[in-house]
Amino acid sequence: MSDDKKLTTRAEDFSAWYNEVVLRAELADYSPVRGCMVIRPSGYGIWERMQRALDDMFKATGHQNAYFPLFIPESFLHKEAEHVQGFAPETAVVTHGGGKELDEPLVVRPTSETIIYSMFAKWVQSYRDLPILINQWANVVRWEMRTRLFLRTLEFLWQEGHTAHVTHDEAEEEARKILGLYSDFMEGWMAMPVITGQKTESEKFAGALRTYACEAMMQDNRALQAGTSHNLGQNFAKAFNLTFQAENGEIAHAWNTSWGVSTRLVGALVMTHGDDNGLRIPPLLAPTELVIVPIWKSDDERGRVLETARRVYDSLRDWERREPNRLRVHLDDRESMKPGAKYYEWELRGVPLRMELGPRDIDKNQCVLVRRDTRAKATASLDSVGEDVETLLEAIQDDMVAAALDRREKNSHRGPITYDRFRQLMDGEGGFVYAGWCGDPACETTVKEDTKATIRVMPDEEFRSAEPPRTCVRCGRPSTTEALWAKAY
Amino acid sequence: MSDDKKLTTRAEDFSAWYNEVVLRAELADYSPVRGCMVIRPSGYGIWERMQRALDDMFKATGHQNAYFPLFIPESFLHKEAEHVQGFAPETAVVTHGGGKELDEPLVVRPTSETIIYSMFAKWVQSYRDLPILINQWANVVRWEMRTRLFLRTLEFLWQEGHTAHVTHDEAEEEARKILGLYSDFMEGWMAMPVITGQKTESEKFAGALRTYACEAMMQDNRALQAGTSHNLGQNFAKAFNLTFQAENGEIAHAWNTSWGVSTRLVGALVMTHGDDNGLRIPPLLAPTELVIVPIWKSDDERGRVLETARRVYDSLRDWERREPNRLRVHLDDRESMKPGAKYYEWELRGVPLRMELGPRDIDKNQCVLVRRDTRAKATASLDSVGEDVETLLEAIQDDMVAAALDRREKNSHRGPITYDRFRQLMDGEGGFVYAGWCGDPACETTVKEDTKATIRVMPDEEFRSAEPPRTCVRCGRPSTTEALWAKAY
Repeated sequence: MSDDKKLTTRAEDFSAWYNEVVLRAELADYSPVRGCMVIRPSGYGIWERMQRALDDMFKATGHQNAYFPLFIPESFLHKEAEHVQGFAPETAVVTHGGGKELDEPLVVRPTSETIIYSMFAKWVQSYRDLPILINQWANVVRWEMRTRLFLRTLEFLWQEGHTAHVTHDEAEEEARKILGLYSDFMEGWMAMPVITGQKTESEKFAGALRTYACEAMMQDNRALQAGTSHNLGQNFAKAFNLTFQAENGEIAHAWNTSWGVSTRLVGALVMTHGDDNGLRIPPLLAPTELVIVPIWKSDDERGRVLETARRVYDSLRDWERREPNRLRVHLDDRESMKPGAKYYEWELRGVPLRMELGPRDIDKNQCVLVRRDTRAKATASLDSVGEDVETLLEAIQDDMVAAALDRREKNSHRGPITYDRFRQLMDGEGGFVYAGWCGDPACETTVKEDTKATIRVMPDEEFRSAEPPRTCVRCGRPSTTEALWAKAY
Repeated sequence: MSDDKKLTTRAEDFSAWYNEVVLRAELADYSPVRGCMVIRPSGYGIWERMQRALDDMFKATGHQNAYFPLFIPESFLHKEAEHVQGFAPETAVVTHGGGKELDEPLVVRPTSETIIYSMFAKWVQSYRDLPILINQWANVVRWEMRTRLFLRTLEFLWQEGHTAHVTHDEAEEEARKILGLYSDFMEGWMAMPVITGQKTESEKFAGALRTYACEAMMQDNRALQAGTSHNLGQNFAKAFNLTFQAENGEIAHAWNTSWGVSTRLVGALVMTHGDDNGLRIPPLLAPTELVIVPIWKSDDERGRVLETARRVYDSLRDWERREPNRLRVHLDDRESMKPGAKYYEWELRGVPLRMELGPRDIDKNQCVLVRRDTRAKATASLDSVGEDVETLLEAIQDDMVAAALDRREKNSHRGPITYDRFRQLMDGEGGFVYAGWCGDPACETTVKEDTKATIRVMPDEEFRSAEPPRTCVRCGRPSTTEALWAKAY
């Protein structure tokens, strides 16, 4: 049961607001293990719907699921030079098993490139065995010092895709295809529009040739990296001897990609859509889309209202909607709680649509439908309530993505900008700044030291400014690429 | 690609046969980490279908999924006296994280009672907060010395249900309900009939009040424990201070249950249904239910046959079957392989039904359907092939469970039995022996030392013999309970 104290508002303290929403909507809780969280049913229900949607998309594009070991021999991590530098410092290490000290310590996977490509090397002989298109749903561990529920935890859940191809171009196409798939999922299901593009050398994945990412804007105007897709080149294939006999008989190294999204997306959902009353879940990801709250005062009213509420509940649950899944509807018939307290609780928990049903509504054969996103109320006839509910849920999904897009664009800055103005922005309201970059990592570092802002991506063409920036925002030299700068989670 | 050498037969060496089927059907592979396996897409596809079916059953009975940390503080394991004795010797221990030695080592969960009930204690105040009905899909680690693919590995995947209740009887009802659900799943989906019953004190879960189990008979006449459901009593509630205020205002300890099945079930499936040609998957769990193998000799035939095959494939994929899911059909149009080699491969992989489609079939507007379970062939008109396929798949599912039941009963022994005959059986053909037991653990131990057989369960009423055994098979004293004895995995 959640606390009745009012939530901290986003304006007062965004970070406190976030933690309160996550805890009081019962998405997650702190655990007795430092930095590890418990994902409670309300949070896991959202993650399950994310998993189902993504899994369907992976399978529709020819990927299959598999499962690789949790433990990785420490020596494996050392086979790819950049990879070990990136990950070794943040690993959890098993030194004892079955009461004995191990000959070689085992690392709890921080990511699975090394173990997976060592298996691919065993399975692939000929070009005919390629491509391999595999995905894994798993837990991973990275020893973070400063943790936040969902956003950065020692252990998190994710999917990691791993593929092997005959050519560079096929791998590039795969990495790009998945980036598009992620972007479609984030916009279409999470109602969270993202900017896609390529990471700079300093921000790319340890061991990759190129990293692509989806970046979303949270309500505090910070960027959140919501998913990454890597063209790994032949780096891991060379480290793990993943070779194949080509059609011309020659032995060549395969080209790999890897890509992932994690339970971090649940945090992104909260920070994209939550308001000062709590969570707002886009209908497509809501474990419950509609909650029915019956209203009565006397015992006489109670019987009549509950009977109608149950009838409406049954008809909605069985109702054949336009999309293939059944409506996810809940009847809140708790006797110990007043309707107002129920409204408050379901708003906090972010259920997209609420039906209020009292004796006077029933007399008129109607009910009241209240949207969580806008809190707008509408009356609906009980005869056609299924259609009305479905229409409203679709409108909520559409309006939520439109609102998020609108907010992002209002807090994005394009066009010529001085470094002073840039620093002022990053010290103040934040947001996305599209500005020039000379390509020199020294400028990137200086900007980060001065403002904490980083290049989130070099945006893909559709997100670039109509008028390309001419000069580097930091040094004034000619710009070689447009960059999206922001402070980030 | 699988090796062309013939499989070892079950009669020659059941254990070698099992490993060959698992490896060559590409269900799993050995990994570079001792005792840990890789679950390949063909094996993971079966596990995914098991997960989906079980998850639907859990949700239909009011359970919700959640996720708890992989790591457990070592001290937690020590809070329940029997539990630590059972599990501490086989744990993997993380002693270092982020490059530093930890103050308190973390155990990689071998099971999650301790961490979960410590959270329940935080969430539960009043009887109104009960019951809690939670399930978790997760990986667990037990440091086994002798491992077998799927059957016993250091890391495995499973689900673990954890519930908390107000009374002993509610917990007992829950533990029993889940046992029935498991049994229904194993018989209905896996086509693997099981004997249910209670474990003896020496075989129960470390920390439980009572353990119930499902026991299946493999084709080598050994028993395999396929799932367990525990009434934990108040043991963990007392260890973790999981209390609630009862309706009468008093503070009481909650009653817990826990229950689980694991990827071991994939191994059970192989050992229940496989034959000397490889795997046989019951249709309900088969990632592919029907494979279409087009047959051609000349290039002219090739075009005509492939065109028809693709048309049939499309019509079957879109076909509205009686059950809600679409038919899982695959068209094997590989050009580099002869039809006979394809038959061999799909038989090895256990696809329940094969369609052979050649030019003469097409001339007659028909195809040949070949059952994997019986290898029986039948001709079907292409006009009504959907109905024929569905009818055959249903028949295969039914016939597989009937065959497994028949085999089990043929290898079960009931009625008066001398200890000499019992030993002879256990030294030879094995099987299930229903015999009396005096209730003395000493007899249980002696039988195990003499024969390696254990009491699998004290069977539930429906599985008990019409004529209850009168004397203990070992000592001749009066029997206090009928027991199912067998050598086990």
